[in-house]
Amino acid sequence: MRVFTGIQPSGDLHIGNYFGSIKAMVDSQAENEVFAFIANYHAMTTVQDGRRLSELTMQAATDFLALGIDPEKSTFWVQSDVKEVLELYWFLSSFTPMGLLERAHSYKDKVAKGISANHSLFAYPVLMAADILLYDVDVVPVGKDQIQHVEIARDIAIRFNNAYGDILKLPEFRVDENVATVPGIDGQKMSKSYGNTINIFGDEKAQLKTIKKIVTEAVPMEEPKEWRGCNVYNIAKLFLDEDECLALQERYERGGEGHGHFKLYLAEVIWEHFRPYREKRAYYEAHQDEVRDILKAGAAKASEAAREIMEKVRSVTGAAY
Amino acid sequence: MRVFTGIQPSGDLHIGNYFGSIKAMVDSQAENEVFAFIANYHAMTTVQDGRRLSELTMQAATDFLALGIDPEKSTFWVQSDVKEVLELYWFLSSFTPMGLLERAHSYKDKVAKGISANHSLFAYPVLMAADILLYDVDVVPVGKDQIQHVEIARDIAIRFNNAYGDILKLPEFRVDENVATVPGIDGQKMSKSYGNTINIFGDEKAQLKTIKKIVTEAVPMEEPKEWRGCNVYNIAKLFLDEDECLALQERYERGGEGHGHFKLYLAEVIWEHFRPYREKRAYYEAHQDEVRDILKAGAAKASEAAREIMEKVRSVTGAAY
Repeated sequence: MRVFTGIQPSGDLHIGNYFGSIKAMVDSQAENEVFAFIANYHAMTTVQDGRRLSELTMQAATDFLALGIDPEKSTFWVQSDVKEVLELYWFLSSFTPMGLLERAHSYKDKVAKGISANHSLFAYPVLMAADILLYDVDVVPVGKDQIQHVEIARDIAIRFNNAYGDILKLPEFRVDENVATVPGIDGQKMSKSYGNTINIFGDEKAQLKTIKKIVTEAVPMEEPKEWRGCNVYNIAKLFLDEDECLALQERYERGGEGHGHFKLYLAEVIWEHFRPYREKRAYYEAHQDEVRDILKAGAAKASEAAREIMEKVRSVTGAAY
Repeated sequence: MRVFTGIQPSGDLHIGNYFGSIKAMVDSQAENEVFAFIANYHAMTTVQDGRRLSELTMQAATDFLALGIDPEKSTFWVQSDVKEVLELYWFLSSFTPMGLLERAHSYKDKVAKGISANHSLFAYPVLMAADILLYDVDVVPVGKDQIQHVEIARDIAIRFNNAYGDILKLPEFRVDENVATVPGIDGQKMSKSYGNTINIFGDEKAQLKTIKKIVTEAVPMEEPKEWRGCNVYNIAKLFLDEDECLALQERYERGGEGHGHFKLYLAEVIWEHFRPYREKRAYYEAHQDEVRDILKAGAAKASEAAREIMEKVRSVTGAAY
């Protein structure tokens, strides 16, 4: 199956991103044809510093390659390298009722937050529909807050197909119910906007400093401690197998160790877990031209898939003459 | 100076189009570098029959070549052949406040007429801004109803340049005050929407039939007639030199001829005026592949101009990485 994922180039990745979506995407490469792109056109709606956007794009590429996107197996590219997406975006616009966009959460939420309303914020569900529909994808894995975008894409595709025949494949969304909600250091859902994240590729000292800030109960050192509901335990268990979880529970229940000890242990577990990825990242960091080549090769593969659809689309819409 | 014109592929051209804009554009080629494109992306917002749009595109190309667009001197292409325009369109969207589009006449008017509001109708002033700003143009000749579009383009360009530096040239609009308002056969302004047009490339019989319908005063044959305010005279004078005008006035004033005679004369004048264009049109009609080659060569020239701007735009916005 062809599985589709968009990656926001939004800076440092944290372990909430990792367990929330990245790991599932990487794992899904074993059985699926993964199409993953870095959404730099979307990022432009908020990042209006060109140098910064270039950096964020390269950072996302480097991070995701390090974390296991396999450019041999999967198609991995930067959105702006496949121009056809904007062409389809325009064609779809004639099949997008204004009401559909006015009701889109992303627009309403951003405007409510006081982000000044410009046309790209408003229009971006249409661009997202073009992203999805351009590659004949079967499935789009989404978080719950993204379901509406796939529904909008389906809605537009149906209208387009009604006018021109069965050209665009209707994608299914898939909400992975098994995906862990990762708690942040304050116990809320880990999210950059809450400032409660633990980065994947942080420097070791800074990492430890962050982990030491995890909010825990105040219980005297010698007493037993409750691992259920403990933020340290809840983060640690994401990285541990069953035996390791039981061992950690025992340390909590035994008493004699403070939360500080568990935090040190967690820091080590995280650091070790990401060691191979960190090493791979260092390699790509030192070989940015290789990263660029990978992205360009990915764009060529994506363009080929896009061309098949667009030839049909241009023909039925009369853009070919 | 680089002068910019968009051509709507909207079917049969009439003499209102000719004296209202086409003649001025053709004449302006003597002194200017004319960039003229067939706006098929715009047409898609209302024409959702692909075969029809293809035909309209080729018809517009054939008509305008027949009427004197010189592909050696000017750059003449089909909008959808220069993909960069949609790229710039997206970039400009981040600098287009929603309010600017909500206030655009074209959208408000169409919605008021009951045309169902879809996103492409709403967004099309942004695409039009991209059309204009992509080619570093100096001047956009417009009718009064089009001034707002150039103002919107300037407004967006200013915002873009404020963010990224002096990249986009601000175009000037020019309203040609000397342009004749051509009366239709009912005396109202000639316009397809009033059904009062005289086509440029009609069949001779149909043409005559239309001209016979021109509304005139009822005055007995032998009496003198008033040429001032007469629809037949007012159309005829567009085609006549001063001596010919005086001669026609005299025929009106002399009496002894009815409006039917003047109509026959008008039909002949029009038919003769467009004879060389009709012959040229027949040639292109019989050589549609040559027309396509001309359009493709025009697109290559336009793309070259677009590429210069887009390289800068991609670099400053960070779409290049």
